[in-house]
Amino acid sequence: MSVEEILTLDAVALDRHQQRMVKFAHDAYPIFRSLTGAGVRETLALLKQDLPDLKVREVPTGTQVLDWEVPREWTVREAWIKGPDGAIVVDIKDHNLHLLGYSVPIHETLSLGDLEEHLYSLEDQPELIPYRTSYYVDRWGFCIAHQQRMALVPGDYEVFIDSTLDAGSLTYGELVLKGRSDREVLVSTHCCHPSLANDNLSGLAVVSSLASVLGSLKESERRYSYRFLFLPGTLGAITWLALHPEAAETVAHGLVAANLGDTGEFHYKMSRGGSLSESWPIDRAVEAAACQLGVDLVVEPFVPFGYDERQYCSPGYNLPIGSLSRTPWGRYPEYHTSADNLDLLSGAALKGSLQLFLAVCNELEQEKLYRSKHNQGEPQLGRRGLYRTLGGDDQGRERELALLWVLSLADGKRSLAQIAQRSGVSSELVGWAIEALLDPGLLEEV
Amino acid sequence: MSVEEILTLDAVALDRHQQRMVKFAHDAYPIFRSLTGAGVRETLALLKQDLPDLKVREVPTGTQVLDWEVPREWTVREAWIKGPDGAIVVDIKDHNLHLLGYSVPIHETLSLGDLEEHLYSLEDQPELIPYRTSYYVDRWGFCIAHQQRMALVPGDYEVFIDSTLDAGSLTYGELVLKGRSDREVLVSTHCCHPSLANDNLSGLAVVSSLASVLGSLKESERRYSYRFLFLPGTLGAITWLALHPEAAETVAHGLVAANLGDTGEFHYKMSRGGSLSESWPIDRAVEAAACQLGVDLVVEPFVPFGYDERQYCSPGYNLPIGSLSRTPWGRYPEYHTSADNLDLLSGAALKGSLQLFLAVCNELEQEKLYRSKHNQGEPQLGRRGLYRTLGGDDQGRERELALLWVLSLADGKRSLAQIAQRSGVSSELVGWAIEALLDPGLLEEV
Amino acid sequence: MSVEEILTLDAVALDRHQQRMVKFAHDAYPIFRSLTGAGVRETLALLKQDLPDLKVREVPTGTQVLDWEVPREWTVREAWIKGPDGAIVVDIKDHNLHLLGYSVPIHETLSLGDLEEHLYSLEDQPELIPYRTSYYVDRWGFCIAHQQRMALVPGDYEVFIDSTLDAGSLTYGELVLKGRSDREVLVSTHCCHPSLANDNLSGLAVVSSLASVLGSLKESERRYSYRFLFLPGTLGAITWLALHPEAAETVAHGLVAANLGDTGEFHYKMSRGGSLSESWPIDRAVEAAACQLGVDLVVEPFVPFGYDERQYCSPGYNLPIGSLSRTPWGRYPEYHTSADNLDLLSGAALKGSLQLFLAVCNELEQEKLYRSKHNQGEPQLGRRGLYRTLGGDDQGRERELALLWVLSLADGKRSLAQIAQRSGVSSELVGWAIEALLDPGLLEEV
Repeated sequence: MSVEEILTLDAVALDRHQQRMVKFAHDAYPIFRSLTGAGVRETLALLKQDLPDLKVREVPTGTQVLDWEVPREWTVREAWIKGPDGAIVVDIKDHNLHLLGYSVPIHETLSLGDLEEHLYSLEDQPELIPYRTSYYVDRWGFCIAHQQRMALVPGDYEVFIDSTLDAGSLTYGELVLKGRSDREVLVSTHCCHPSLANDNLSGLAVVSSLASVLGSLKESERRYSYRFLFLPGTLGAITWLALHPEAAETVAHGLVAANLGDTGEFHYKMSRGGSLSESWPIDRAVEAAACQLGVDLVVEPFVPFGYDERQYCSPGYNLPIGSLSRTPWGRYPEYHTSADNLDLLSGAALKGSLQLFLAVCNELEQEKLYRSKHNQGEPQLGRRGLYRTLGGDDQGRERELALLWVLSLADGKRSLAQIAQRSGVSSELVGWAIEALLDPGLLEEV
Repeated sequence: MSVEEILTLDAVALDRHQQRMVKFAHDAYPIFRSLTGAGVRETLALLKQDLPDLKVREVPTGTQVLDWEVPREWTVREAWIKGPDGAIVVDIKDHNLHLLGYSVPIHETLSLGDLEEHLYSLEDQPELIPYRTSYYVDRWGFCIAHQQRMALVPGDYEVFIDSTLDAGSLTYGELVLKGRSDREVLVSTHCCHPSLANDNLSGLAVVSSLASVLGSLKESERRYSYRFLFLPGTLGAITWLALHPEAAETVAHGLVAANLGDTGEFHYKMSRGGSLSESWPIDRAVEAAACQLGVDLVVEPFVPFGYDERQYCSPGYNLPIGSLSRTPWGRYPEYHTSADNLDLLSGAALKGSLQLFLAVCNELEQEKLYRSKHNQGEPQLGRRGLYRTLGGDDQGRERELALLWVLSLADGKRSLAQIAQRSGVSSELVGWAIEALLDPGLLEEV
Repeated sequence: MSVEEILTLDAVALDRHQQRMVKFAHDAYPIFRSLTGAGVRETLALLKQDLPDLKVREVPTGTQVLDWEVPREWTVREAWIKGPDGAIVVDIKDHNLHLLGYSVPIHETLSLGDLEEHLYSLEDQPELIPYRTSYYVDRWGFCIAHQQRMALVPGDYEVFIDSTLDAGSLTYGELVLKGRSDREVLVSTHCCHPSLANDNLSGLAVVSSLASVLGSLKESERRYSYRFLFLPGTLGAITWLALHPEAAETVAHGLVAANLGDTGEFHYKMSRGGSLSESWPIDRAVEAAACQLGVDLVVEPFVPFGYDERQYCSPGYNLPIGSLSRTPWGRYPEYHTSADNLDLLSGAALKGSLQLFLAVCNELEQEKLYRSKHNQGEPQLGRRGLYRTLGGDDQGRERELALLWVLSLADGKRSLAQIAQRSGVSSELVGWAIEALLDPGLLEEV
């Protein structure tokens, strides 16, 4: 099978991956993840079942990483609030989101009034538990549904958080697949969110399946090397960048993956460099891939907000990395609430996302520049069986036009995607024409 | 008379050319033309009556021309089908289109079923005979009206094609008019189609009249040299290019002419180079000419399909050549059928086409670049009679603005058309302003 | 006080300037101004009361200035028409506009018919006296309301114009404020119009207050030098250019000021160079200033019509000078008529105009280029108090985005205005972010 066929996957393989992704999300959903700690390790262990070569990296607390420092590791054993009647009213056992991320330990009895300052809820979405964290300032708190909060009766509340913030490490997963070139395609997704399904079990699921498919290629079959990063948001990317000063040289293309399991339209946020000047190859590859799959794609320019493209695209690196999601962060009502649960995930959406990521990789793998070898007048296509021999025949007109466009545009600086874009001929037909012209030596790959 | 006046033609001269073009079309319509052979020679002989300096070129069969080879010459003496009752049902004497172009000789009796494989007809246009050829693969065949085909009774048919495919030559006509510069305006039109009026007796008629008018100028009156080519489509252009490796250096501007006798709107297909980057001078000249004549013009970007611009604009040459027609090929129902007959030609349309080609030549002849000679502050236009002397007067404001725009934009690199385009002032008014400023020496031609 | 504070002016200072500008307009309105002569000198003397360093320049009649020549000086003592009954029907004492500018002397009795050829009126605005001149052709004439003209009875009219056109000089005012750099900001306004309030006592008022405020800075506080020109339209600018061949080197930015006292929207006509290519710094500064003040601004491209930008922006100079007005010339019904009187002026409008000019100067003074000092990954804003410490908090999102945009775009070649323009973040917020980042050393001024 050709690389292209492998990256396309057949229906059976796609279904298998869909099932795997859904299963992973179900298995990983209950895990209590945070910026550091056991939850990330458990999640990476789950991924390692399907990606045996995944490396789990540990970077010690206190390590200076760029302008930041790896924080203490957070461990939580128990966390609950007992009401005036002694009954538990909030318990992390009921929902991971109940505990403010990185809450310091506490065991106290407070009045409802004092407790209120440590409660987080959403007035506009009174049934939902919000997702909140306080990584860098010592706080404790609980996140609860606003309707539950409103129902709290005055009185004394016993609060217990059995957590520790100790020297430990920041954990991330990394899988490198060597290819013919040392230049890398970097695919990065965040693994720090607790029980939130679309953000970002979907990203972990899609990227791990993507890594699995690409890993099924031989090293010699991969044009690029690939690096898959499963890391805590912001600090994970900063840590990785700090440890990889060579990244600016080695990263050829890249994508940040998140929010890939809902049924919304695909959204692509361009690379910073592509937004500031002309679109970059990764930008064109994503567009070409969506076009080739026939899926809608909303393309947006770079903004310095979002996921880890914020770090990768910071001006000192300015890596050629875009961000690919379905509905982007913050634009769906379930975002960062308990409603971002497994019900929000669609198996078909996960499968479609995997297909798009594969198609992007395929674009990058396949991207070749072509040069017409016969550019003085048209070559006689007819005698190569590439042109109707019967003048006035309408058969095959589209294919002939594709051939002529390729001959006209293949100047050694254009790829299939660029020829398709410039000519308005479909990528598929341009691809066919390129093959048809390579064969009799009318075209060459540069 | 100035060159401009000569190229404009007065009403009498225009009428004379209209009559000449219509007469040529009538005389040339019955001639049996093909890629090679006597028909092309007869047609060129007709043109030579009005263009005594037309050279008839013969390029021998077997000559290698770029990626192609000059084919055998085709001669036809007789071609008919006799029905089961012995009566002739199809005869080339009735219509030149009846014979598949380049049919090999045959004399056989076949069943209707076997004959069917050699018949070409149009189901959608059952009364019309299609135009079909098989230049590069040995075939024989007849083109007939679909209704006639449907009426053929079962039985044996005697088929007779008395043709020869022998060593001979490819024939084309060439007329060169020297001008002050060796740089050439190339006007090319195809002469290979049999009894099809709009495609392309119209092109032959218009280009020959154009050549005749330009030939009425003295050499010293022509800024450019002109080369008029009447050649078989595709192979003629390829042959000419093969014989003129210097073309890339000498061709300054050019047009491919065809489909110029119907009453449709003018269509201009831009040069390839102009389509890939900024419009080129020929592109601007055509637009300016149409604008000046006040005729509508649809401008379309280059596509590598069409007539001989396919060859001239192939990347190895990329000549600055566009294609000018009325209704483009393939977009009128009579195209490539027996309905493209003399009834389709309008004398007024031919005249209008000639006018547009003349206006384009005039644009090219006249195109001048201007430089303001007084560009530090405004020159005192009032004392040259070019500015209202009465402050507050609204008279002549438009003309003053035109003068000021010319002074502001004439940097030695802009032509009238470019100044008009940039300023939004009409070409007419810019032309007036240029004259008005040249006179007192405020402007100079570069 | 910082330069920025001084250029912003407090409410008290603004009111004082508003009163000053209104008073100046009232005092200057009755003065009989023209291209040359006593009226210009009196007006400059009035300005000198508030601008003691204003230099009054005199350029003798006959001096060659570029393509022009300084004309004779015009002096008028008396001008009237007596009707058939011996009563004065038109008298310059009633309105300065009654006399055609630069009228030659005359004392004659004419029939109404002959007189008509020397009368100017507005049929469409029958109550208004038009403003008309004849600087460069010897004429005499009177401007009157059309309704008065219609009421003139047949008979003999005695016409008396006691004027002289003698060798003298062209007069203009010039005030130069030295700054740290020799590169200048040029602000130019015309002083030749007689009793017309908006066109251009408003310009004189605003520019003189602007000069006064900038003059209150110490030389070392001014980044640029400033040159304020109060000169007769067209010829004044041409004269100044002729005398300052170094202008092309020294003028860094500039504005032509006029029509600044009506209550219309601000209009900015871009510099010629900015219109032909990318916007120039003065163009961006005006936009940024309007944006910062929160006032609407209509931006229009350069056209070679208007005020003295016609001269400054002529191609031989192409100075970086735009034109800033409220309702542009010719677009309000009172323009160049007796209705452009003191009633048309709004004190608040003058004040608002002054504020905008000050804000532009402030933009130019303040324009600084910034470079992010920490561009590998995002700096940890949270520990500098610049980022929410509570993950999921929506508070301050806009400010965070502004900070991130500045970090992303501050490459040492962008100013506040350019960062605002590129990011779409308001100038105010970008300004806040720049300050916030400079403080902890995350950003530096280049």
